[in-house]
Amino acid sequence: MTKSKALELLLDKIEVSGNLMSAMALFNWDQSVGKVSEKSLPARGATVGWLGGEYFRRFIAPDTLEAIETLEAHDSELDSLERAMVRNLGRSYRKAKAIPPEEFQAFMALRTEAEPVWETAREKRDFAMILPYYEKIFDYQRRLCDWYGYDKHPYDALLDDYEKGANVEMLDAFFATLRKKIAPLVKDITKSGRQPVEITGTFDKDKQRSLMPWLTDFVGYDRSRGRVGEVEHPFCTTINHHDVRITTKYHEDNLLSALFSTIHESGHALYEQNMGAELVRYGLDECASMGTHESQSRLYENVIGRSRAFTAVLLPKLRDLFPFFADWDEDMLYRAVNIARPSLIRIEADELTYSLHIMVRYELEKALMTGEIKAADLPGLWDEKYDELLGVRADDIAKGVLQDVHWSGGLVGYFPSYAVGTAYGVQMVAAMKKSVDIDAAIHKGDLSTVGAWLSENIHRHGELYLPEELLLKATGEKFNPDYYADYLSEKFGELYG
Amino acid sequence: MTKSKALELLLDKIEVSGNLMSAMALFNWDQSVGKVSEKSLPARGATVGWLGGEYFRRFIAPDTLEAIETLEAHDSELDSLERAMVRNLGRSYRKAKAIPPEEFQAFMALRTEAEPVWETAREKRDFAMILPYYEKIFDYQRRLCDWYGYDKHPYDALLDDYEKGANVEMLDAFFATLRKKIAPLVKDITKSGRQPVEITGTFDKDKQRSLMPWLTDFVGYDRSRGRVGEVEHPFCTTINHHDVRITTKYHEDNLLSALFSTIHESGHALYEQNMGAELVRYGLDECASMGTHESQSRLYENVIGRSRAFTAVLLPKLRDLFPFFADWDEDMLYRAVNIARPSLIRIEADELTYSLHIMVRYELEKALMTGEIKAADLPGLWDEKYDELLGVRADDIAKGVLQDVHWSGGLVGYFPSYAVGTAYGVQMVAAMKKSVDIDAAIHKGDLSTVGAWLSENIHRHGELYLPEELLLKATGEKFNPDYYADYLSEKFGELYG
Repeated sequence: MTKSKALELLLDKIEVSGNLMSAMALFNWDQSVGKVSEKSLPARGATVGWLGGEYFRRFIAPDTLEAIETLEAHDSELDSLERAMVRNLGRSYRKAKAIPPEEFQAFMALRTEAEPVWETAREKRDFAMILPYYEKIFDYQRRLCDWYGYDKHPYDALLDDYEKGANVEMLDAFFATLRKKIAPLVKDITKSGRQPVEITGTFDKDKQRSLMPWLTDFVGYDRSRGRVGEVEHPFCTTINHHDVRITTKYHEDNLLSALFSTIHESGHALYEQNMGAELVRYGLDECASMGTHESQSRLYENVIGRSRAFTAVLLPKLRDLFPFFADWDEDMLYRAVNIARPSLIRIEADELTYSLHIMVRYELEKALMTGEIKAADLPGLWDEKYDELLGVRADDIAKGVLQDVHWSGGLVGYFPSYAVGTAYGVQMVAAMKKSVDIDAAIHKGDLSTVGAWLSENIHRHGELYLPEELLLKATGEKFNPDYYADYLSEKFGELYG
Repeated sequence: MTKSKALELLLDKIEVSGNLMSAMALFNWDQSVGKVSEKSLPARGATVGWLGGEYFRRFIAPDTLEAIETLEAHDSELDSLERAMVRNLGRSYRKAKAIPPEEFQAFMALRTEAEPVWETAREKRDFAMILPYYEKIFDYQRRLCDWYGYDKHPYDALLDDYEKGANVEMLDAFFATLRKKIAPLVKDITKSGRQPVEITGTFDKDKQRSLMPWLTDFVGYDRSRGRVGEVEHPFCTTINHHDVRITTKYHEDNLLSALFSTIHESGHALYEQNMGAELVRYGLDECASMGTHESQSRLYENVIGRSRAFTAVLLPKLRDLFPFFADWDEDMLYRAVNIARPSLIRIEADELTYSLHIMVRYELEKALMTGEIKAADLPGLWDEKYDELLGVRADDIAKGVLQDVHWSGGLVGYFPSYAVGTAYGVQMVAAMKKSVDIDAAIHKGDLSTVGAWLSENIHRHGELYLPEELLLKATGEKFNPDYYADYLSEKFGELYG
C-alpha cells in the first residue's frame, strides 16, 4: 500500500466513523430526553448495536492495520496532524482488535437495553431488576481486561481506556495523597459540627430555567451550536462539531443542583466546541482523556462556580427571582455553596468530599475486576464503604448503589477520571493565574480571558497529545496532585476556620 | 445461489436497511422538534447522506439482484410473506438501480440541508433563498423520471413511487370527476355568501395541549409506543415498529388547526402501529401506498372528526376549557368545523375544497417535470392557479408557494396521494358501514370497532398487497371516486341547504 493510498483510506474510515458515532450519539440523546417505550427497546438496541458493530467492523478490518503500518513506516514524512492520527488509530486498533466483534455488538445492544432498566430499577428501588444486566456488563468488562491484556492489575486495562497511561499503582498513590491531606480535614469539619446557613425551601423550576441562558452564556457555551435538554441524569453529548448538547435536571427542593450541574456540563461543552475544526478530518476532535474532559467541567463548576467572586455575581440574580435571598449577603452565599459535609449522592457532593465518593467506586470496580467481589455484593459493600470513608449510609438504594448511570451504560474504569481530572483542573488554574486575573474576569461577568487560555492551551488540541503531554505543555509541570490537595486545604481551612 | 442462501441474504439486508432507516428517521425527528444550528447542517447533511447512501449501496449490490432472481425462479415454493417480499424488493431494486449512487447520496444530503433553509425562507418571506435548492431538487427529480423511464408522461415515473400504478391519465380523470361534481358545489356556496358562526378569538396553547391525550387516545393511538412532539409542520414518523411518533403545532388564533391535525397524524400512526409484527422481518411493515396512508389519516380527520357525532362528543370538552363555547350547541359546532370556503393554506383547507389545493400542486409538478415551467416561475404560477381554481390569491408568500415542506424535503409526486387517499378512505368507510355502526361508536367515545375493522382490512397487511388489490379486498370493489364525490355532495349539500 502506498503512503497516499493509506492516508486516503484512513481519512475515509474516519469520516464514516464520524457518521456512525453521530447516529449513536443521537440515539442516546433521544433516549435520554424523551420516554422510550419498553417494547421498542429490543429494536432500538438492535439498531444501536448494528451502528456500533459497523463502526467496529470497519475499523478493525485488515486494511486498517495495513494502512496504519504503512504510515508508521513513513513516520518522518507525516505532518503533525497525520502523525497524531496514526498514533491514535494504531493505539485504538491494537486494543480494539483484541475484542471479538460479536461480543462488542452484543455489548452495545446490552447497554442500550440496560440504561432504561436502570432508570426503572432506581424508581422502584429494585436492585434485583438491574442485577442481571450488571452481571453481564461486569462479566464483559472482566473479559475485556483479558482481551486487552495488562501487566500488573486487570483494572489497569480498563483505566487506560479513559485515562491513557493511568493504572492502579498511580491511582492508589493519588488517592493515598487525598486520604492523607483531605480526610483529616473532613473529619475535623464533621467533628466541629459548625455549618453555615443553608439554602432551603422550594424553588420554582421555571424560575430556575430562566437563569440558564445567562449561566451558560457566562461560561461561554455557544447555544447557537447546540441544544439544551432536560434529563434524569445530566450529560453533554456531541452530535457533530457544531452541535454540542448539554442537559440539566431541575429539583424544586435543591436550587444548587441544576445551577452547578449546568455550569459543569457547559464546561464539558466548551471543550468540545473549542476543539480545532481542522482536527475533525483526522478524528482528533476528541478529548485528550476523560480526566482532561472532567478537568474542564469541574474547573468551571468548582474553582470558578464556587468562588467568592462568582457568588458576588450570582447573588443579585437569585435575589431577583427568589425572595428567600432578600437578607443574604455574598459571604453567606459563598459559604452556602461550599458546605462541606459527608453525603450520599456523588453528583451533589461538595468539592471537598467529592473524591471520597470516587474512592468508593474505584475500590469496588477494582475488586469487581479481580473477581474478589460480585455484582450481587454491591448494595452491601456500597453501604459499608460509604460508612467507612464518609461516615454515612443510604437508607434508600436510589441514593446508594443505584444512583449512577455509568454501570448500566457499560462504563467501568471511568469514575477515577472524575477525581484525577479535578486535580488536573486545579493545576491548570494555578498556571493560568500567571497571566489571567480570574477573579476580575468573574466580577466583570466576562470569562473570555479564561476561555481563551483554556482554548489555547487545552481545548484546541483535542486528542493531539497524551494527557500527560498536554498537562506538561499547558502548565510547565508534570501531574502533581499536591496542587489539588493544597487548594482544598487552603479553601476549606479558610472557610471553616 | 441456493434458495435458502438467497432468503438469508435478503432478510439480512432488510434488517440492516431497517437500522439505517431508523437512524435517518431519528435525524429527521430531531431536526424537526429542535432547533439545529446552521453551522451544523453540512455535517448533519453528510451523516444523513452517508446513511442514505449506505442504504442504497447495500440494496443495489449485485448479490441483491441475484437473490431476487433466485427466489423469483422458486416462486411456487415461497410462502405468502416471502413472495410479497420478493415482489416488493424486485420492484424497488429495478427502480433503484436506475439511480446513480453518487446522485442519490448527494440528493439525500441536499434535502437535509434544504429543509431548514425552507423554514427560514418561509419566516423571512424570501423565495430567492430557497430557489437554488428547489432548482437542484426539481432537476434531480426530472432526471429521476428519465432514470426510471416511463411510457407516456415523465411525471408517471414519480407518481408510481408513492402510488403504485398511478399515472397522469388516471389522475387527470380523477381530478376531472372532482371538477365536474365538486367545483359547482364550491361555486354555489361561495355565491350564496351564507356562512355559519365561526370560532374566533385566542385559545391558550396549554389548554389546547391538555386536550391531546384524550384526543389521541380516542383515535386509538398508543402513546406508550411512541412520543408526541411539537414542530413547525406536523408529521408522523416511525423510528421502529414500537416507536411511532406524531407531532402537532398549536396556534393561539386557530383552535381547530391542532385538533384536526392531531387526529390526522394519529390516523397515520394507527396504521403504523397496527401493522402485523410478523411483517417487520420481511420489510413489509410499510404502507401499501402513500394514498393508503392518507386514507387513514383523512378518514379519521374528516369522516369521523368532522362528523355530527364527533362534534357532540367534542363540544363538552371545549366548553370545559374555553368560555367561548358557553352558548354553543352541537349543530353550531358541526357547522363551524365544516365551513367550506376557498382559502390559501392546504393543511387548513376544508374537506370540500381540499382537493382543489392538490390540483394546483398536481398541475405545477406535472409541468415542472415536462420542463414547461421552471422553479423560478412557481410564485407567479402558484398565485394564478389559486386564483383560477379557488378564486383566492396570497398576499403573503408564506401562505402561498412557501407553505409546504414537501419540495424542500425532496418530495415530488407525493401531493396527488392526498386526494386519491381521501377518496380511498371514503370508499372504505362505505364498506365498513355494512358491519360497523360508526356514529354509535363515536357517541360512545370508543372507536375500537372502527379501529378493528381498519386494522383487520387495511393496517395489518402493511405492504403485502398493491393499493388496488388492498382496496378491492377491503371494500369488494375497485377504486371508484364516485363514493368520494357523492359523499361530499351529500354532506355539504345538506350543510349549506
